[in-house]
Amino acid sequence: MSTSPQRTTVGNIDEEILLFTAGKDLVLDLQLAEADCIGSAAHARMLSTMPVQPPVLTSEEADALIAELAKIRDLARAGQFEIRPEDQDVHLAVERNLTEKLGDLGKKIHTGRSRNDQVAVDLRLFARDRLLDLMEDSASLASALIGFAEKHPELPLVGRTHMQPAMPSSVALWASAYAEAVLEDLSSLKHAFTLNNKCPLGAAAGYGVPIPIDRQLSSDLLGFAKPLHNVAHAIQARGKLEYQILQAMGQLMITLSRISQDLMIFTLPEFGYFRIPKAFGTGSSIMPNKNNPDVLELIRSKCALVLGYSSAVGHILHAAPGGYNRDLQDAKEPFLEGLATTSASTRILARCVEGLEVNPERLRGAFDGGVFATDAALALVAEGMPFRDAYHHIKDHLADLENEDPDAAIARKTHLGGTNGLDLPGYRAEIDTQIDWIAECRKRLADKLNALFS
Amino acid sequence: MSTSPQRTTVGNIDEEILLFTAGKDLVLDLQLAEADCIGSAAHARMLSTMPVQPPVLTSEEADALIAELAKIRDLARAGQFEIRPEDQDVHLAVERNLTEKLGDLGKKIHTGRSRNDQVAVDLRLFARDRLLDLMEDSASLASALIGFAEKHPELPLVGRTHMQPAMPSSVALWASAYAEAVLEDLSSLKHAFTLNNKCPLGAAAGYGVPIPIDRQLSSDLLGFAKPLHNVAHAIQARGKLEYQILQAMGQLMITLSRISQDLMIFTLPEFGYFRIPKAFGTGSSIMPNKNNPDVLELIRSKCALVLGYSSAVGHILHAAPGGYNRDLQDAKEPFLEGLATTSASTRILARCVEGLEVNPERLRGAFDGGVFATDAALALVAEGMPFRDAYHHIKDHLADLENEDPDAAIARKTHLGGTNGLDLPGYRAEIDTQIDWIAECRKRLADKLNALFS
Amino acid sequence: MSTSPQRTTVGNIDEEILLFTAGKDLVLDLQLAEADCIGSAAHARMLSTMPVQPPVLTSEEADALIAELAKIRDLARAGQFEIRPEDQDVHLAVERNLTEKLGDLGKKIHTGRSRNDQVAVDLRLFARDRLLDLMEDSASLASALIGFAEKHPELPLVGRTHMQPAMPSSVALWASAYAEAVLEDLSSLKHAFTLNNKCPLGAAAGYGVPIPIDRQLSSDLLGFAKPLHNVAHAIQARGKLEYQILQAMGQLMITLSRISQDLMIFTLPEFGYFRIPKAFGTGSSIMPNKNNPDVLELIRSKCALVLGYSSAVGHILHAAPGGYNRDLQDAKEPFLEGLATTSASTRILARCVEGLEVNPERLRGAFDGGVFATDAALALVAEGMPFRDAYHHIKDHLADLENEDPDAAIARKTHLGGTNGLDLPGYRAEIDTQIDWIAECRKRLADKLNALFS
Amino acid sequence: MSTSPQRTTVGNIDEEILLFTAGKDLVLDLQLAEADCIGSAAHARMLSTMPVQPPVLTSEEADALIAELAKIRDLARAGQFEIRPEDQDVHLAVERNLTEKLGDLGKKIHTGRSRNDQVAVDLRLFARDRLLDLMEDSASLASALIGFAEKHPELPLVGRTHMQPAMPSSVALWASAYAEAVLEDLSSLKHAFTLNNKCPLGAAAGYGVPIPIDRQLSSDLLGFAKPLHNVAHAIQARGKLEYQILQAMGQLMITLSRISQDLMIFTLPEFGYFRIPKAFGTGSSIMPNKNNPDVLELIRSKCALVLGYSSAVGHILHAAPGGYNRDLQDAKEPFLEGLATTSASTRILARCVEGLEVNPERLRGAFDGGVFATDAALALVAEGMPFRDAYHHIKDHLADLENEDPDAAIARKTHLGGTNGLDLPGYRAEIDTQIDWIAECRKRLADKLNALFS
Repeated sequence: MSTSPQRTTVGNIDEEILLFTAGKDLVLDLQLAEADCIGSAAHARMLSTMPVQPPVLTSEEADALIAELAKIRDLARAGQFEIRPEDQDVHLAVERNLTEKLGDLGKKIHTGRSRNDQVAVDLRLFARDRLLDLMEDSASLASALIGFAEKHPELPLVGRTHMQPAMPSSVALWASAYAEAVLEDLSSLKHAFTLNNKCPLGAAAGYGVPIPIDRQLSSDLLGFAKPLHNVAHAIQARGKLEYQILQAMGQLMITLSRISQDLMIFTLPEFGYFRIPKAFGTGSSIMPNKNNPDVLELIRSKCALVLGYSSAVGHILHAAPGGYNRDLQDAKEPFLEGLATTSASTRILARCVEGLEVNPERLRGAFDGGVFATDAALALVAEGMPFRDAYHHIKDHLADLENEDPDAAIARKTHLGGTNGLDLPGYRAEIDTQIDWIAECRKRLADKLNALFS
Repeated sequence: MSTSPQRTTVGNIDEEILLFTAGKDLVLDLQLAEADCIGSAAHARMLSTMPVQPPVLTSEEADALIAELAKIRDLARAGQFEIRPEDQDVHLAVERNLTEKLGDLGKKIHTGRSRNDQVAVDLRLFARDRLLDLMEDSASLASALIGFAEKHPELPLVGRTHMQPAMPSSVALWASAYAEAVLEDLSSLKHAFTLNNKCPLGAAAGYGVPIPIDRQLSSDLLGFAKPLHNVAHAIQARGKLEYQILQAMGQLMITLSRISQDLMIFTLPEFGYFRIPKAFGTGSSIMPNKNNPDVLELIRSKCALVLGYSSAVGHILHAAPGGYNRDLQDAKEPFLEGLATTSASTRILARCVEGLEVNPERLRGAFDGGVFATDAALALVAEGMPFRDAYHHIKDHLADLENEDPDAAIARKTHLGGTNGLDLPGYRAEIDTQIDWIAECRKRLADKLNALFS
Repeated sequence: MSTSPQRTTVGNIDEEILLFTAGKDLVLDLQLAEADCIGSAAHARMLSTMPVQPPVLTSEEADALIAELAKIRDLARAGQFEIRPEDQDVHLAVERNLTEKLGDLGKKIHTGRSRNDQVAVDLRLFARDRLLDLMEDSASLASALIGFAEKHPELPLVGRTHMQPAMPSSVALWASAYAEAVLEDLSSLKHAFTLNNKCPLGAAAGYGVPIPIDRQLSSDLLGFAKPLHNVAHAIQARGKLEYQILQAMGQLMITLSRISQDLMIFTLPEFGYFRIPKAFGTGSSIMPNKNNPDVLELIRSKCALVLGYSSAVGHILHAAPGGYNRDLQDAKEPFLEGLATTSASTRILARCVEGLEVNPERLRGAFDGGVFATDAALALVAEGMPFRDAYHHIKDHLADLENEDPDAAIARKTHLGGTNGLDLPGYRAEIDTQIDWIAECRKRLADKLNALFS
Repeated sequence: MSTSPQRTTVGNIDEEILLFTAGKDLVLDLQLAEADCIGSAAHARMLSTMPVQPPVLTSEEADALIAELAKIRDLARAGQFEIRPEDQDVHLAVERNLTEKLGDLGKKIHTGRSRNDQVAVDLRLFARDRLLDLMEDSASLASALIGFAEKHPELPLVGRTHMQPAMPSSVALWASAYAEAVLEDLSSLKHAFTLNNKCPLGAAAGYGVPIPIDRQLSSDLLGFAKPLHNVAHAIQARGKLEYQILQAMGQLMITLSRISQDLMIFTLPEFGYFRIPKAFGTGSSIMPNKNNPDVLELIRSKCALVLGYSSAVGHILHAAPGGYNRDLQDAKEPFLEGLATTSASTRILARCVEGLEVNPERLRGAFDGGVFATDAALALVAEGMPFRDAYHHIKDHLADLENEDPDAAIARKTHLGGTNGLDLPGYRAEIDTQIDWIAECRKRLADKLNALFS
């Protein structure tokens, strides 16, 4: 085998260094192009309102810049914006575009800011949208799980502990348990959204600028809840914010992975409880008989990937001192990859759950006497026998329980949150509340941005 | 060297297995003894209200059990409760105590529950207290940082990027930046508190019980916001909750570590900006001249430990399928260690910050011309020169800036969150709000528990 | 609930700091006491050979010190050595003991060294023994697996991919596959042993000493392969070495975890292939019917713990600059815990495997037609049909394969490493080679240490 | 902002699933194309030697296939090989190419193997080359460090502990300490190379094939040391092997990161010990005065990335049961990224070290009296004062040491590995030994592959 591609650059040290320092920014930054235009538009508008003479930007100059930024934003949306190697990153690429069209006016846009606050606001604008998407994806997954429970509200399932048959459970209990977990994960995404919803613009390199910028205005124009107050914190919070979001996504991925693992087991031929839709599995190049649950396996592995991204970002932060450090650039890829991976996994699992089919015979057939033992012991307790004695009594008479009825067993758990005490409409209402919140949030932000560009 | 201690158990397979499965529970569970008594008291009271004949527990029997649990709780508080090897864990140790005193009545306490929901509620009761402590510790650290800023509101500090001198900053900007970060971390602890504030009691092994327990009542008696609804989720959320708390602590530890790293650099003889109190460093056994910042170094390493605990718990969850799995036992030590480590680190750093001394001469002396360059460039911009041109102009005239005045420079950053635009009273108010919330929360919980045991 | 124990120290700042900086050293260091005596004995002997006048130690003084160190070592072996809070760590505790017995002579032992090289050599002496133990444990596990294969050399097992039934396999193939993995892990432990087998003594605080110590002699006396050359590296390698060992243990734990997961699945009632010995499972407090594979679950979770320890140590290193940093103290606990956890897990799994029972009916009964499909396709290929065509032909005629014979199927895989081409004696020979190497290594080291103390 | 790109595929579930399951294989697999051709060539040759009638492949058919594979390999080397979406992966892309050219003969290549052993051998062939590159890169870095030491064999440097000035050290001690660490890391890469150097071909899906393949021959043709014996292990070792290599790279990256952190500190204006070449830093968009050590910061962050990749792969393995699981596909990207990142970091740091310049005045000027204190204490000891007394004496007379000479101080450490006892030629010899080994290894493999394709 020949040597690796990067070997070919030996000898041209500057090019190798450029490749090393720019990293994948030329590609990754494309995702931030739209946000960069939006952040720049707000900055331009703010500059034009500053009470200095002569003005840094006149109102007309700001209009011209914003109009041009709108065009670049549209290019970016259409996937036609490009970052050239000599640009190094999206910020300089946008500035080059402005300067090509507007000459010296284009250069003025960078007054009173640094690439540090620029990328910080870009990431927050980008994260804001993606978190809303991801919250919606999570709500959809919760909805799919509750939908599955609603389709089978009284279908018995052997409940397991230690992976082994343990006690009577139900398909609805299984599915809504995970819906409740997903809704908790959604609340963690929302907490991350709240932390994200603050504007770093005007922090410049972390030490502000000696001109009377209006950071509150920038924040308002962009629809953030408020500015990050301290300018040093505004810059130091980079990385920290990505880590917060990755942590919330890690929680969600663990939930997804556990759902997937349960489904892999429940769909084994030895179990046969559920069937995943054929499209979610694949065949084998050598084993004509196989239909493998590849999607579920990949969600399990992608959980490890997202936890790995999270770990990487946490440790980038841990090793770097205060103030801006170039290290933070390397938080970008794990963050963007984590978002894409989590979103894709959530959406595909929601669809898989939507298409799940059940096999009631196998589900009921899996009950043997032992599964009813605990309930039987508790019946003795209800008649006055101390629990520990009932426990030993049942242990000695397990065979008597072979003919118990699974459906009756799950009907007897009437307390709150038991197999016959589940509040499925309550889950549904909670999901709708979240979806409405997301929609309102999106509308409010769209209005803000429309106003900025109008 | 002789072989290791555990070698000596060779041959007695049952004992070795017991040692392996019980792990450190005999020791770790001591921390949960008080919570176990509280949870059991609520369970007993709830059982006595169940509308069944004969009652599982009469009201008098519940009183007797609760009175005995109060005694055990007091023993635990006094550090005098013990868990014997034959007990295996705190739950069986408490039950043994009850049975020794109350005979068969003691056995009845376990009706309608499992060790799974018992440990789940213990952990949440325990975590609730510790999170309040930790939030208070965080508020104290934020207060110490703001206090440091208040002492030196206008003292210049060279602001750094890439670790190198960059722009005029101030001691107050530096300290309040980290206060703002700590307050964000506190909000993440509060989010974890909210997730924790739900009661798993009555979930038993994850599949409920066939008797009409009142899970809402148990939750109310214990002062939780509400029960976890789905009983399977109530058990599966174990581990997940610990992970959530560890993630929030990881964020805080990273902030602590970065403060520590800055302090280690700022106290180097080459810098001499700050001096940490003598008690926070140690000498060397071989180098008589040293006073090392051991405490700060250990906070940096403890950050890695807490992130490691967090990672371990996340991956315990990732590898285990749904339902209760014994794996979760191993989440206990990282969780308890993480709490103790984070709390100790937070408190000790707060004290270190309280004792920080500054050296104004070194702080001002560290400014050279380059540090003023960006501000100078922006002054040209304010006079109408395009930024990129100003940038190049200043780059060619750096020597002209040698005599700039640091104090004047930081006075010029008047915008929101800049060196002369910091709202220190605002931080102070936010800290007080958090402290009041914690105090009210503690009072409400104390009232609840007093009512339970009265 | 009352506040936490550490709250009580509020007000006594020095004590709290001492607690924070000493950490768990008072307890953890007990494990290093024997090693500390050994390292000190070699150092004393070396000092007495130094060509300086007056001698730092006379030969008689060295004898006296070594005799006293032997007594302390014996105390430590007997578990009777103690480290007092005022000692801070094992090194000062040993020195205090020496000084109590030998007066000023005791103080002289610390000439030409620092606690930095002292703890470094202690850890390497300790690790050397533990690695040999762990290699032996690994060899025992490999032996248990091969023993299981030897007991059932021709017993069919459904081979799985994607967790699902795939192709004919055998119990012996399953067991020896993991034996081969364990032997690879053992080779990684041996690589760590080699890296560990170098002596840091004489590096002092990382910068050597201005007296003519003989570092080669210290190394020889202790039975190391050679000294670490560079004294700065000798100190900086602390942490790095622990990380290396933890990485090797992480590999082993993953192998153990995967064996455990397979066993958990194969022992489910739905499978019933194997039975683990009753002692390795536990019952349930609420479910009388259960016999849960707790040991296996705990091995799975302990894998996450060990990977977490490893991650913590890696990141302690990552965040600390060069030279000795106090951070390294915090690598001690994850390292010691990792060693104990990995060793216990390996030994207990070996015993579990030794006691595994098989159910040939269930093993053979699990074969359905699909499992034979790939082999059938290959038979067509052998008759001249292109593989892709054979693949499609079989896919259309799966039902024809229902009556295939599992035993015949596994007999047909005669190539190297196939179900009928396994070289079990080869594995056995490899295991014996490793065990012999360990025994020789132990003997050589025992001879060295006997000579040192004689 | 518009919604994310992946939103657009909503509605076409199959395409979304394909995108999810194929992941980045279409791109990543391009790196494996050359290896896939090589592995296939060996497999074809082996098939043609099997003693079956009719032969699976005649000798002429094998020649034809190998000739065609050589052409595809050359395309891949030239960067002109492509994998189409309908191919899914490199294996099917190569097979499609063969079939387009050779018709039915092309289909025969897949006889007696699966994509599982195919990708396993591809990864090992690829890793083999990359590990040799990386070992060479490491040797180059060690060489650069020793070269730096050779240039400045007697130049004093303040040795640090706890980041603070501690004792006399030297530039050569600093540089060669890291060279020794890099050489240890190289030995870990070599250990990974040894584990990698075994051939999985013939394992098929992990359960072998019912035809008399010659796995030893395949291994020999490819130049592996031997076949992996057990076919199940051959497949299960996937992921494990990548993890092993990532662990070794993690060790190396930590060493690189620590070198970088030291350089970042030593090049601060407050230190001014060293200067990194201008090309290795970058300016600032807002601060004209800056020349930031971006390359070094990025090496520090890339260490976190590589540790994150390693963690992800470890946990993919931890969560998956035995046998092939689709999860392993997700180990590919962290593995390939880890290799590329580590190699680039190592090479760029080597060049940075080669270009390092020193400032002898600043280096010597940094010595104050305290740095000589320990040496002075030891001088008293040499005159007969007990160490602890000397320690206190010096502590009380630190001012007397202000005029000590750094050059004399480092000349006094004559023992092995001290500032005046460094064996730089010894390091040089060790580096040369490694480079020779790598070159011989490469030559042997090139001969093998030439023979295979001739």
